[in-house]
Amino acid sequence: MNIIDIINKTKKSQELSEEEIQWLVSGYTKGDIPDYQMSAWLMAVCLNGLSDEETFALTAAMRDSGDVLHLNIPLTADKHSTGGVGDKTSLIIGPIVAACGVCVAKMSGRGLGHTGGTIDTLESIKGFRTDLHLEEFEYILKKTGFSIISQTGELCPADKKIYALRNATGTVDSIPLICASIMSKKLAMNANILVLDVKYGSGAFMKTKKEAEKLASLMEKVGTAAGKKCKAVVTDMDSPLGKNIGNALEVKEAVELLQGKISGKLYDICIELAAEMLQLAGKGSFEECCQLAKDAISSGKALEVLRSTIQLHGGNDKICDDTSLLPQPLLKYEIRATKEMEILGFDCEELGMTSLLLGAGRINKDDKLDMSAGIVMNCDIGDHINSDDIIMTLYSSVCSDFSVPALRALNAVKFKITERPSYT
Amino acid sequence: MNIIDIINKTKKSQELSEEEIQWLVSGYTKGDIPDYQMSAWLMAVCLNGLSDEETFALTAAMRDSGDVLHLNIPLTADKHSTGGVGDKTSLIIGPIVAACGVCVAKMSGRGLGHTGGTIDTLESIKGFRTDLHLEEFEYILKKTGFSIISQTGELCPADKKIYALRNATGTVDSIPLICASIMSKKLAMNANILVLDVKYGSGAFMKTKKEAEKLASLMEKVGTAAGKKCKAVVTDMDSPLGKNIGNALEVKEAVELLQGKISGKLYDICIELAAEMLQLAGKGSFEECCQLAKDAISSGKALEVLRSTIQLHGGNDKICDDTSLLPQPLLKYEIRATKEMEILGFDCEELGMTSLLLGAGRINKDDKLDMSAGIVMNCDIGDHINSDDIIMTLYSSVCSDFSVPALRALNAVKFKITERPSYT
Repeated sequence: MNIIDIINKTKKSQELSEEEIQWLVSGYTKGDIPDYQMSAWLMAVCLNGLSDEETFALTAAMRDSGDVLHLNIPLTADKHSTGGVGDKTSLIIGPIVAACGVCVAKMSGRGLGHTGGTIDTLESIKGFRTDLHLEEFEYILKKTGFSIISQTGELCPADKKIYALRNATGTVDSIPLICASIMSKKLAMNANILVLDVKYGSGAFMKTKKEAEKLASLMEKVGTAAGKKCKAVVTDMDSPLGKNIGNALEVKEAVELLQGKISGKLYDICIELAAEMLQLAGKGSFEECCQLAKDAISSGKALEVLRSTIQLHGGNDKICDDTSLLPQPLLKYEIRATKEMEILGFDCEELGMTSLLLGAGRINKDDKLDMSAGIVMNCDIGDHINSDDIIMTLYSSVCSDFSVPALRALNAVKFKITERPSYT
Repeated sequence: MNIIDIINKTKKSQELSEEEIQWLVSGYTKGDIPDYQMSAWLMAVCLNGLSDEETFALTAAMRDSGDVLHLNIPLTADKHSTGGVGDKTSLIIGPIVAACGVCVAKMSGRGLGHTGGTIDTLESIKGFRTDLHLEEFEYILKKTGFSIISQTGELCPADKKIYALRNATGTVDSIPLICASIMSKKLAMNANILVLDVKYGSGAFMKTKKEAEKLASLMEKVGTAAGKKCKAVVTDMDSPLGKNIGNALEVKEAVELLQGKISGKLYDICIELAAEMLQLAGKGSFEECCQLAKDAISSGKALEVLRSTIQLHGGNDKICDDTSLLPQPLLKYEIRATKEMEILGFDCEELGMTSLLLGAGRINKDDKLDMSAGIVMNCDIGDHINSDDIIMTLYSSVCSDFSVPALRALNAVKFKITERPSYT
């Protein structure tokens, strides 16, 4: 096999064989194929796409570039979200599904750029360790049914290397490449059940519903072809998921939801995703599974799972009763309406960047996080608010000058000014 | 400016500004932009193309990456052929045009792969030096009106670097990139008059007439936009140009043509290209210029130019009277027809590769050449030949086993077996 022939085939939209794709991925991972040839191939993929079979082969080759997890647990479920602002669903669905008897084993990443990472969110709980050995991970899974650990270096080295190259060569936005990147890691985690939450909208990777549906359908096909019970759902990201954005703030909201204090969109999505997982695990029809999920919250069983999991991870489980034990910000800044207005939507990417500037996220890989920092939304899409009403509140312990975050936060609000009829 | 933005623009078929293209080319030439980003951009160009304005800017930026020649001669003409098998037109047209009073200043390359290089061809003349200083080049041009020197390292370093990367990344076959590569070098040579011979067919870079016409039209536009008098003609390469392929063999044929001994396709093309040059130089209508070119041959003036040029380059000018003074092969091998047949055509790329295997060309840059090696075609397209007639003759001084070249040569012949009606 020959790299120039492979590049030329993709350039001419000719299909590569499974062997050619394996050879390409393993050659690149080993360093036999240089970056400049791989990036030419990646650009050809961006512009010409890949067939489903090529995407299966690419995903499998990337999975096989490193370790594949084999947990000593008969049935495990995993969930993936394509990244959204304020997305704390993993912290909620895991305990719900575990409470219904299905083990949820998640390996998660840290946040970079405008979307947060579940590992960062969990580390806002004092003492919580995510860098566990696999034996500890298995132990917690067997005890509580739910655990999340940080990604180890041995999974999918091909993806790591390819992703870095894509980032540096304008070859990120390709549905087959995005699919292979996500699915190779999920398949290396090797759970039996896989629920994928593909987000679209201003805060998500996929900007349109159509693109998100394409990616969802492809991911489902790839998962199924790899022998998984796999379901992909498409959800919008036109407003943050829940009211809170930022590490401790998101833990707080997750706990409050499991305490039964929160309804609305966040609750509905968590029930839907949990029910999809339970249905794939054979726990009944979708409606029955929704009921199981709701009962897990109302009975307090899901909160108990979260409590035990936090404890076994070394974290302060008292936050399950008293969220004021989470890191508290030193400063706050309220964004208020200057006129009567109707809230039409939010630019979630701007909100994510604002949260990052407040200290909740990273621009560079080694940036330190302010666990207390973030945003609480005080209004929702469709709300009519009066002059001087609070739109959102910014929190930080490290950002002493709120002028730039406040401006970004304000820019993130899409509204129209409403004229009140005058009765004179 | 930002390389990712530039890659993304071309990926999305958005036009780059002149400044962006200059920044890209100079950044890559200096090494600020790494190969892997450049190759992603090149692949985007292969698949999405470039606008005419982008191609002008790319060509100009590549030209300006190195020296631009300024000869102390008021009017010079240059000719470029996109490479063909057995193409010795430069050796013929230069003397003709110079004999008609227009200075032909050529800088040429060495051959690599199946097409030969004019510099190699000239070096088959004993003593002929091509690595002249510019002062010597100018001196010869003023004396005889015709000189060819080998390419210096300072011209178009950007093209050199980009071409090597294209070769390694499957990004060679893009008309704007081919155009920019050829034209940047031609514009750096800075002749006032430029005639471009774009070949198509089995022995050429462009396989179809349509592609060749596209490239010709683009090159003409680029040359004109750069202030040159520029004309591009499209010629077929379905059979070798003339009968001889190989270094000394091609010099022999060029001399014989200038001696007035050869007519046919090679003669016609040389007259046409010479006339185009003379017309651009204001020597009259195309028909008048054809007559001037023919007269330059029949009067012997063109041969005298070649003789003086060879002499001033240190070469043995006696070959102009006696071509047997050129390197003579030690061995020959005749390819004969085994049946009565009609010659339908040739695969010129195969013929070029055969000539290379005989010792006339290079596979690697540092391969030594056998100046005597090559092929003489003993028949032409449309010929009816009998069993045992010679189709072509292979020559070599280094290749002692003709079995592989003979097989390739035979494969290069497209023929049909003609059944003679039997009168019994």
